Amino acid sequence: MKIHGQAYRTIWLAQDGWRVCVIDQTRLPFRFETVTLSSIDATAEAIRSMIVRGAPLIGATAAYGVALAMRVDASDAALEAALVLLAATRPTAVNLHWALGRMRERLSPLPADDRPAVAYAEAAAICDEDVALCRSIGEHGLPLIRDIAARKRAGQPVNILTHCNAGWLATVDWGTALAPIYLAHDAGIPVHVWVDETRPRNQGAALTAYELGAHGVPHTVITDNAGGHLMQRGQVDMVIVGTDRTTATGDVANKIGTYLKALAAHDNGVPFYVALPSPTIDWSLSDGLREIPIEERSAREVTHLTGLGEDGEVRWVRVVAPGSTAANPAFDVTPARLVTGLITERGVAPASAEGLARLFPERAQGAAA
Amino acid sequence: MKIHGQAYRTIWLAQDGWRVCVIDQTRLPFRFETVTLSSIDATAEAIRSMIVRGAPLIGATAAYGVALAMRVDASDAALEAALVLLAATRPTAVNLHWALGRMRERLSPLPADDRPAVAYAEAAAICDEDVALCRSIGEHGLPLIRDIAARKRAGQPVNILTHCNAGWLATVDWGTALAPIYLAHDAGIPVHVWVDETRPRNQGAALTAYELGAHGVPHTVITDNAGGHLMQRGQVDMVIVGTDRTTATGDVANKIGTYLKALAAHDNGVPFYVALPSPTIDWSLSDGLREIPIEERSAREVTHLTGLGEDGEVRWVRVVAPGSTAANPAFDVTPARLVTGLITERGVAPASAEGLARLFPERAQGAAA
Repeated sequence: MKIHGQAYRTIWLAQDGWRVCVIDQTRLPFRFETVTLSSIDATAEAIRSMIVRGAPLIGATAAYGVALAMRVDASDAALEAALVLLAATRPTAVNLHWALGRMRERLSPLPADDRPAVAYAEAAAICDEDVALCRSIGEHGLPLIRDIAARKRAGQPVNILTHCNAGWLATVDWGTALAPIYLAHDAGIPVHVWVDETRPRNQGAALTAYELGAHGVPHTVITDNAGGHLMQRGQVDMVIVGTDRTTATGDVANKIGTYLKALAAHDNGVPFYVALPSPTIDWSLSDGLREIPIEERSAREVTHLTGLGEDGEVRWVRVVAPGSTAANPAFDVTPARLVTGLITERGVAPASAEGLARLFPERAQGAAA
Repeated sequence: MKIHGQAYRTIWLAQDGWRVCVIDQTRLPFRFETVTLSSIDATAEAIRSMIVRGAPLIGATAAYGVALAMRVDASDAALEAALVLLAATRPTAVNLHWALGRMRERLSPLPADDRPAVAYAEAAAICDEDVALCRSIGEHGLPLIRDIAARKRAGQPVNILTHCNAGWLATVDWGTALAPIYLAHDAGIPVHVWVDETRPRNQGAALTAYELGAHGVPHTVITDNAGGHLMQRGQVDMVIVGTDRTTATGDVANKIGTYLKALAAHDNGVPFYVALPSPTIDWSLSDGLREIPIEERSAREVTHLTGLGEDGEVRWVRVVAPGSTAANPAFDVTPARLVTGLITERGVAPASAEGLARLFPERAQGAAA
C-alpha cells in the first residue's frame, strides 16, 4: 500500500541485501520512521516492544530474525537458541510459532553452510506468501461488502466497524480485516469505517486511522465504548476484525475488547466477520476460552499513554489517578457462536470445526474437533 | 466523604452565605481545586464544561444556579430565563430537569421579593435530600454485596466492576453505584473494584480511582475493553453502575459503553445492577432506545486527551492520527432485559414497569407503562 504516494511493504531487505528494514509502528501516526535490524537480538526486541506488531508481520519478522542469526552462527545450537529466543517474545501469536516451526523444518536438515542463504530465501517466501494470502482474503471478503452495498440506497456508504489494526501495517501488505475494505473502496463501492480507538495502545486511533487516511478511505474514530450504541441505532452494517489465533472450532483470540463488539453485533443482528490467513489457525485447539493463554502486559500501558503534545513532540501523559494501579490483559476470546463467518484465503467458512474442515481438509485431519 | 482527611460535600455555600463552591472535577485527579460560582452564567458554564458532572450533582448545581439568578433579578421573566438557560446545558440528564421543575414549582407562586431566600433554601434542601437518598441506596445495595461475600472463601474480596463515575463526586455525597461499596468497605467486607477507565473523558481512571483511593478502597483500573474478558474468567462477581436517566420500564441511559458491559454480564451470568435515586427515573418514558435523546459531544474529547505530563503539569496530547475525525456519542441505553436489578432509595426493584411501580406506586400512576 502507499504512504505519501510511495509504495511500501511493512518489511523489506536493505540495499545491502542482508539487513532488514521495518516501519517503526510505535512512532506512527505522528512520525514515519523506519528501523534497520542487523541482529537477532534487535529483531526480538522489535517484536517485544511492538515496533512491529500484527500476527502475520510478527511471523515474517521472526523468520528474518532467524536469518540474521544464521548469518552469524549457523550451528544447530545457534538455530535452536534463535528459535527459543524469538518464540518467547509474544506468547499469544500463533503465527510466530508457525513461522519459527517452518524455519526449523526447512533449516534443520541442512548443513550449516547452506542455512544462511536458505533462511533468507525462506523468510522472503513467507513474506510473499503473506501478501498473496491477504490479497485472497480481500477477494473473498469483497462480495460480503458488495452484497450489503447492493441493498443500500445509491451513494449510501456501507458502514463497517473494525477493532485494533488488522490492516496492511499488521501484515506484509493489504492486511486481513482491512483487505476487503481496500478492495471495495478501490472498486468504487462507497465504504465508511468506524475505527475503534483500541485502548490501551490505541492501534485503531493511531494505525488503522493512519493507513485508511493514507489510502483515502472515509473513516471515523470512536471510543471502544461507542460501537454497541452505533449498532443499536442501525449505524453499523457489518463488523470485520482480525485475529491473533483461531481454534480449529472457530473461537477467536483477538485484541482485548473484540468479544464485547461480538456480543453487541449478535444482540443487534449485525454480521460479525473475522478475517484470517490460515496460519493463524491453531489446529490443536478446540476450546479457545480454556486453551488460549492470554498475555498480561504492563500496567503502564493503561496508566500512561502517548500522543502528540502541544509542542509538536510525541509525549507521555499519565491518565490514571496517582497511586492507583492497573491490569492489562491484551487479548480476549470471542466464542465461535458469536462469529458470523471466517474470511480466509480459501473462502468464507462458518465459525465451526465443520466449516473450517471443509475449507482446510488437509489440516483438519487429526486435529482436535 | 473525605479528601486528605477532610470531610467534603461536592457543593457547598461559601462563607459569605451566597456564593456557591464546587470541586473543579476537570482538574482531578492531578489537582484538587475548588471553584466559586457567583452568577447563573458561571453556573451554566460549570455544568456545560463538566466542572461539575454526575446527574445528581448537576441537578443540585442547577438549583443553586436559579438561586444565584434570583438574587440579581427575581422577576417572572428572570426566573423563566434562568430555567431555560440551565435546562440547555446538558440535554440527557433528567435530574437537571427534575431540579429545575422543582425550583419553578416552588418559586413561581411567590412574590419576587420572597424568591431569593426560598431559592437558596430549596437548593439546600435538594442537596440534603440527595445525601439522604444516596445513603439509602447504599444501605439497600449493601446486602447484595454481603450475600456474595458470604459465598466466598474467607478473605477473598468481592470483585465489583463499575463504569464511569457514579461515586460521591457525581452526587452531593456518598454516590450512587459506589455507595453500597463504601458501606461494605466500612463494614469490613473485603471488596475490590474493577474501574473501567471510561473513555473518552476517563472519569473512571481519573475520578472513580481517585475517590476510591482517597477512601482506601482496593481497586484496579482497566481499559473499557477488558471487562468482558474478566467476566469470562470469573474475575467479576457483580457489576454496579449509575444512570443518568431511567425509563418507567427500567431501560437505563448511562455513560457510553455501559451497554457493552451489560451484554457481557448477561453472557456470563454476572449480576448487573444499576443504582439510582428515583429523581433519575423519567416516568414519562417507556422505551429508552427510541425515546432518550443521546448527547453527541465534541470530537476533540476523542481525538485529544489530558493527563499529567512528564513535566508535572496537566497536558493535552492528540491520540488520533492527524487528519482523521471522530464521533462522540456520550451515552448509550441498556435495555431492561439486561439489568438484574435497580438499587433505589426504597429498595431493589426488578428492572421492569411492574418492579418500579411496586416501589413507587405514587409516581407510576398515570405514567406510560
